[in-house]
Amino acid sequence: MSPTHYPSRLLESAVNEFSKLPGIGKKTALRLVLYLLKQDKEMVHKFSDTLRKLRDEIQYCQSCYNISDSPTCEICANPKRDHSIICVVENIRDVMAIENTQQFKGIFHVLGGVISPMDGIGPDDLIITPLEEKLKKGEVKEIILALSTTMEGDTTNFFLYKKFSKYSVDISTIARGVSVGDELEYADEVTLGRSLVNRLPFDQTL
Amino acid sequence: MSPTHYPSRLLESAVNEFSKLPGIGKKTALRLVLYLLKQDKEMVHKFSDTLRKLRDEIQYCQSCYNISDSPTCEICANPKRDHSIICVVENIRDVMAIENTQQFKGIFHVLGGVISPMDGIGPDDLIITPLEEKLKKGEVKEIILALSTTMEGDTTNFFLYKKFSKYSVDISTIARGVSVGDELEYADEVTLGRSLVNRLPFDQTL
Repeated sequence: MSPTHYPSRLLESAVNEFSKLPGIGKKTALRLVLYLLKQDKEMVHKFSDTLRKLRDEIQYCQSCYNISDSPTCEICANPKRDHSIICVVENIRDVMAIENTQQFKGIFHVLGGVISPMDGIGPDDLIITPLEEKLKKGEVKEIILALSTTMEGDTTNFFLYKKFSKYSVDISTIARGVSVGDELEYADEVTLGRSLVNRLPFDQTL
Repeated sequence: MSPTHYPSRLLESAVNEFSKLPGIGKKTALRLVLYLLKQDKEMVHKFSDTLRKLRDEIQYCQSCYNISDSPTCEICANPKRDHSIICVVENIRDVMAIENTQQFKGIFHVLGGVISPMDGIGPDDLIITPLEEKLKKGEVKEIILALSTTMEGDTTNFFLYKKFSKYSVDISTIARGVSVGDELEYADEVTLGRSLVNRLPFDQTL
């Protein structure tokens, strides 16, 4: 596209700011900015203030490194959760996904990424030490590795397994298999293969 | 989707603000918010300030109602533009699209919409009077109606044509026809029909 002529420098800089966001190009940015221009001043001020407040005031839980409004997140502060079972996840979105299942009653540990040599991310870039401290104190019975089924996720799984196997803790990973609701013929071969190898006694699935 | 549990109220309100924007759902909003959280404070402050400044300081040109940083926009303030030819468009994006062609040397008039009974938009909701004032003063030689080729656009074209035909001004509309680079067999019948009816002497197209 030829260089676009913006009728206003204010408009141009707002479009530039929006187009820095992932997945938002100049055209979408312009659409969003023109939408905001049509709204009440109060709405735009609230939008602007909320973003600033978010960045300035958000905290990370000192125990699990999840996002939090306080030094200890709601999950870690909840005495009803089992603090001896720790689910290790890549990021905050994974915490939210697992919480939405309402199937997990333990606590989390957010790594902040996965090992990815291609992106220059090594074990030292992840938050691992605080988790190891908990293992050393013998507070933890089980660690559930709940990382993505990607090469990076599997590498990180293996790294953590090797590192933690010297402690007396059970280490498991979430089950891989055919998605609920999926038709067999559309499942990929690796997934289908794994789901056969890891088959379960039928009465355990009832 | 089941109600999502957000680990932080700050996060939740930022997601809510973003998901008010058109075409942005909760999932995309969360992705954008988590991206902003990872950025420097300065970047987020700049983003926040730019939006507030845009809404508070932007002006509309007193002559053509285009967006502007000053009471008269760059186009209307430019003495090299022909002020006797006015191109009537629906909105600011159309001004930008036509400016990008670099084919138009007159000035604009932004209606702020098109007549659309389905959406409850009538002639009184559009900015028409200031344009008529210019016609009354006899300052204008030609009006080019450059509205969308939709029913609403055509209705508005017809309304303006009826309203302005009593003044001594040439009224034209932009040409409808097969897009440059399009194959004939894929053009719709109405467009192809119009392009036949409105055929031009070949030497005018060279």
